[in-house]
Amino acid sequence: MKVDIKKLAELARLIRYYILLSTTEAGSGHPTSSLSAVELMCALFFGGIFRARLEDPAYPNNDRLIFSKGHASPLFYALYGAAGVVDEDEIKTLRKFGSRLEGHPSMVFPYTEAGTGSLGQGLSIGLGMALNAKYIDQLPYRTYVLLGDSEMAEGSQWEAMQIAAHYKLDNLAGILDLNRLGQRGETMYGHNLKEYEKRISSFGWRTILVDGHNFKEILDAYEKAADTKDKPTMIIAKTLKGKGISFLEDQEGWHGKALSKEEYEKALRELGQVDRFIRGDIAKPAEDYPAIPKQSPAEELSYSSKPLATRKAYGLAITRLFPEFPNMVVLDAEVSNSTFAETFKKKYPDRFFEMYIAEQNMVGAAIGLSSRGKIPFVSTFAAFFTRAADQIRMSQYAGANIKFVGSHAGVSIGEDGASQMGLEDIALFRTLRESVVLYPADEVSCERLVEEAARRKGNVYIRTTRKDTPILYGAQEKFPIGGSKTLKESAADVATVIGAGITLFEALAAYEELQKEGVAIRVIDLYSIKPLDQATLEKAAAETKAIIVVEDHYAEGGIGEAVASALSHIKKTPVYSLAVRKMPKSGKPEELLNYEEISKEAIVKKVRAAITHEHI
Amino acid sequence: MKVDIKKLAELARLIRYYILLSTTEAGSGHPTSSLSAVELMCALFFGGIFRARLEDPAYPNNDRLIFSKGHASPLFYALYGAAGVVDEDEIKTLRKFGSRLEGHPSMVFPYTEAGTGSLGQGLSIGLGMALNAKYIDQLPYRTYVLLGDSEMAEGSQWEAMQIAAHYKLDNLAGILDLNRLGQRGETMYGHNLKEYEKRISSFGWRTILVDGHNFKEILDAYEKAADTKDKPTMIIAKTLKGKGISFLEDQEGWHGKALSKEEYEKALRELGQVDRFIRGDIAKPAEDYPAIPKQSPAEELSYSSKPLATRKAYGLAITRLFPEFPNMVVLDAEVSNSTFAETFKKKYPDRFFEMYIAEQNMVGAAIGLSSRGKIPFVSTFAAFFTRAADQIRMSQYAGANIKFVGSHAGVSIGEDGASQMGLEDIALFRTLRESVVLYPADEVSCERLVEEAARRKGNVYIRTTRKDTPILYGAQEKFPIGGSKTLKESAADVATVIGAGITLFEALAAYEELQKEGVAIRVIDLYSIKPLDQATLEKAAAETKAIIVVEDHYAEGGIGEAVASALSHIKKTPVYSLAVRKMPKSGKPEELLNYEEISKEAIVKKVRAAITHEHI
Repeated sequence: MKVDIKKLAELARLIRYYILLSTTEAGSGHPTSSLSAVELMCALFFGGIFRARLEDPAYPNNDRLIFSKGHASPLFYALYGAAGVVDEDEIKTLRKFGSRLEGHPSMVFPYTEAGTGSLGQGLSIGLGMALNAKYIDQLPYRTYVLLGDSEMAEGSQWEAMQIAAHYKLDNLAGILDLNRLGQRGETMYGHNLKEYEKRISSFGWRTILVDGHNFKEILDAYEKAADTKDKPTMIIAKTLKGKGISFLEDQEGWHGKALSKEEYEKALRELGQVDRFIRGDIAKPAEDYPAIPKQSPAEELSYSSKPLATRKAYGLAITRLFPEFPNMVVLDAEVSNSTFAETFKKKYPDRFFEMYIAEQNMVGAAIGLSSRGKIPFVSTFAAFFTRAADQIRMSQYAGANIKFVGSHAGVSIGEDGASQMGLEDIALFRTLRESVVLYPADEVSCERLVEEAARRKGNVYIRTTRKDTPILYGAQEKFPIGGSKTLKESAADVATVIGAGITLFEALAAYEELQKEGVAIRVIDLYSIKPLDQATLEKAAAETKAIIVVEDHYAEGGIGEAVASALSHIKKTPVYSLAVRKMPKSGKPEELLNYEEISKEAIVKKVRAAITHEHI
Repeated sequence: MKVDIKKLAELARLIRYYILLSTTEAGSGHPTSSLSAVELMCALFFGGIFRARLEDPAYPNNDRLIFSKGHASPLFYALYGAAGVVDEDEIKTLRKFGSRLEGHPSMVFPYTEAGTGSLGQGLSIGLGMALNAKYIDQLPYRTYVLLGDSEMAEGSQWEAMQIAAHYKLDNLAGILDLNRLGQRGETMYGHNLKEYEKRISSFGWRTILVDGHNFKEILDAYEKAADTKDKPTMIIAKTLKGKGISFLEDQEGWHGKALSKEEYEKALRELGQVDRFIRGDIAKPAEDYPAIPKQSPAEELSYSSKPLATRKAYGLAITRLFPEFPNMVVLDAEVSNSTFAETFKKKYPDRFFEMYIAEQNMVGAAIGLSSRGKIPFVSTFAAFFTRAADQIRMSQYAGANIKFVGSHAGVSIGEDGASQMGLEDIALFRTLRESVVLYPADEVSCERLVEEAARRKGNVYIRTTRKDTPILYGAQEKFPIGGSKTLKESAADVATVIGAGITLFEALAAYEELQKEGVAIRVIDLYSIKPLDQATLEKAAAETKAIIVVEDHYAEGGIGEAVASALSHIKKTPVYSLAVRKMPKSGKPEELLNYEEISKEAIVKKVRAAITHEHI
């Protein structure tokens, strides 16, 4: 394609004008981090490289662009301004309350692929999109990720790098805007491009070094990237932070600072005549559509009467449900024989992706897959989701639809000890806006809750148990999100014991024990921890003298606090919490449940105390 | 030193015996992952390389050994068995309730430097210890980290690698036990040592390739590592998982499995005659002691009447307090001009370490520094501590003494938008066992709480605010951990409003507004979120009709739940929560506090409703 470099230069000038205009109007933002990548992005967009229907951002075969350096949002918005889909009035609303142009790209702006702003996450998201294009939808769209040099210090980048090379993602390109300066000074390697080149190429990527302000070199690199087979490409571009404005260019002390009105006027004079009416054209994408996946009803749930661990039920459930949810993709972090994601892998190897022990990248990739319409089921040990807590946090700002499944929850895993015990996973997933947190106790409820999760749009966490647990429910039982099951109930109930997962069986055992003494308790299976079954909780609070929540999780942010908080606005029955409070250690599951005082014995003791004293 | 290779082989046989014995007795554990590294560790310990006083594990100049592959704990304990400080009876208690020999190394075993078991963390911890030796205590001790090949997929490894090279840590050596097999199958690169070599050397490390079962090659590598200047060394050892037992060697399906009694007998026959009474000698460490740091009283706190952001007060506080706490070390993740750690850096550049945008490694390094007696103050944006949530989780199992300081908390940061807002940081730090969570509202309380944090042994989180806030307290005011300040109180109080940090000022403004209507409210500054001031909360519950908690944080796991939970066991006044519940966005701080209904207006509205209705 013949590219008009002169026109690109004019568009670059317009983009610089928008960057300066928007940040000066906002009084904050990152003009200098935006200015360094103007030529890189202008060439991509208007040099015939990037192919998209801007009138249809959801079009499946649009090329994808992710600003991993999300603070360069003024450039991001300016590109769409120069493309004619954001006008100058809107450009001036940057960072204002109610604007689509937020401080970092967010989903209210229709061209944002995934909210960014926490550094080092964009490459994983792009990897997910590229995986989708190459292995699932088999489409020719390409994914581009703009990266900053400071964020290359994040380990997540290198996780993404290794996995992208492992899966030979030749449809993925990184553009490294190497402007030398971080927030508070120079990066570790400054303008030494070779330092980046040797690291990145050692990870199996093609590397192309360019002058990031030279359109010809940049366009040439993009073409080479598109022609590269079997490996991703990193375009390593030497740039100047603040490029184009002499008093900003390559200067320290200008990170995240807007210009004053005077500085702005001075900058505009340097910029010269801007054609405010010039607009750039973007290439058309291919006409390919993904094949619409064939949907067929899942097989009926069948199970034996034998106890089965919910982690095993999870593996069975996703395998059974795939025909009904053909957009499902399963990812696991090298523990599929523990989480039982391997059950799915054996039947549908093409829809399973081994993500190795790199949880951050696994979750980032799931965000990318989710944004391309897939339903990623992502599993590892519950404890190890903390490794990806920031990616999980950011997934809520990407509007993601991910099903997180954490196995090996609580002290009941036994001998492996504290490091392997998920004891803060409920707290982690509860903090996500509009998340769902589910905790099945038996095989049937696990199967049904996996189904509910697949049907639900949005982030869901399912907590599974290592040990086999007895079957509690019949196949016809329904488990709506936000529901609960009252397993023991009578007019004589003196207290309510709320359990979930492994502790439900302790509650049921306590019920039997107390029955012998003529003491009746209500037992509730709170399988839906978020949202909670408010009506059933309030009924129990009204009808019994005490509520005792027992959980294999730390007290903070767990089920006890969720229940206490749900009932805190009404005058009521006291809520007591039995939770993990002592230093967890190795031992048999039963020993540890006893030691932490979350076993049958502890429940019985607490019920007795609750019904004889006001305070305990 | 002349090394008796024949004796090393005898010791290796004893170590293998202990590994098989302990895991078979336990009925679980990781014999094969232990067997692969027997020669590597046996040579280190008994080949004259590792120098330590085993009778004094706290001796400052002992060499340090961290099992990053913590699941190889049977080998770890066996080494100390062969050294004569753990007897065979204790070896047989592996993984049993109450044993010092837990499933993964924990602090109850006196030779554990830091609890491990979450992979990819040991190198960062070792880096912290090596930083201490080279730059702070200036001691000749060396730090060794045993790494697995599967865990090299974790991004945290590459964070540690780059920073160790950046700080030229020639006193740090990694030993990569490249046994080819992960948990569920082969790693990405199998036995291809070159793949690791090119990546690791590109990150600035010296690499030495060895046959990991050949004592001579191993000893030679350790000597080269010790002689290397200005860069860390990675010994990349080709090993066989299950080495020494033919039916385990290099076989899939044997990860994390103990042998049956029959298999054990068979393995012992292959092992041949074991000298159960042979013991190895460990070299003596140097006599160097660290200089005892000179302690002198901190200057008196001085401040002007002008409003000041608590993040700035934090910078002033650590700078003022350093003379009194000369074990302080300050780390920051490339945002020291936002967290104001730079205030300290300017005065004490030798005690400040720039950790770049690599939060996982920063926290891991802090664990290492803490274990060497330092008091690390670690800062970044509150939101970005989620990036290191797993390292933070593991720090509690390392008995760490880290002061985490998160700036830019809540929606009140304004225009930058959701990605930069710490909205789950309180929940994150509350889940840590025995942690302290502090949230100062003004300059004086921030100064005092930093002082309390420095004095306290254990993990503390301090949440700071971006905006300037007015001075509330006099210099003589005390802020004990677990306390609170009742700022407005009268016999006529109808409701209690609990704020902390930024929302305290909204509560005070609501007080003024309600005063005009003749409505009196109690206002409490809950600066200590964990532990809570239980007595003051109970008093407020007894004396006022409603408690309203207002916080710039998501509802889940936050201050509202902490208070609801603290008061849930007594029949009481309702507790209402005003917290961040809508999708956060860009805007002015005031606009966002209003939008989220955590501002003065929302408080006034809630108070009015609370005193007129039972239910709201």
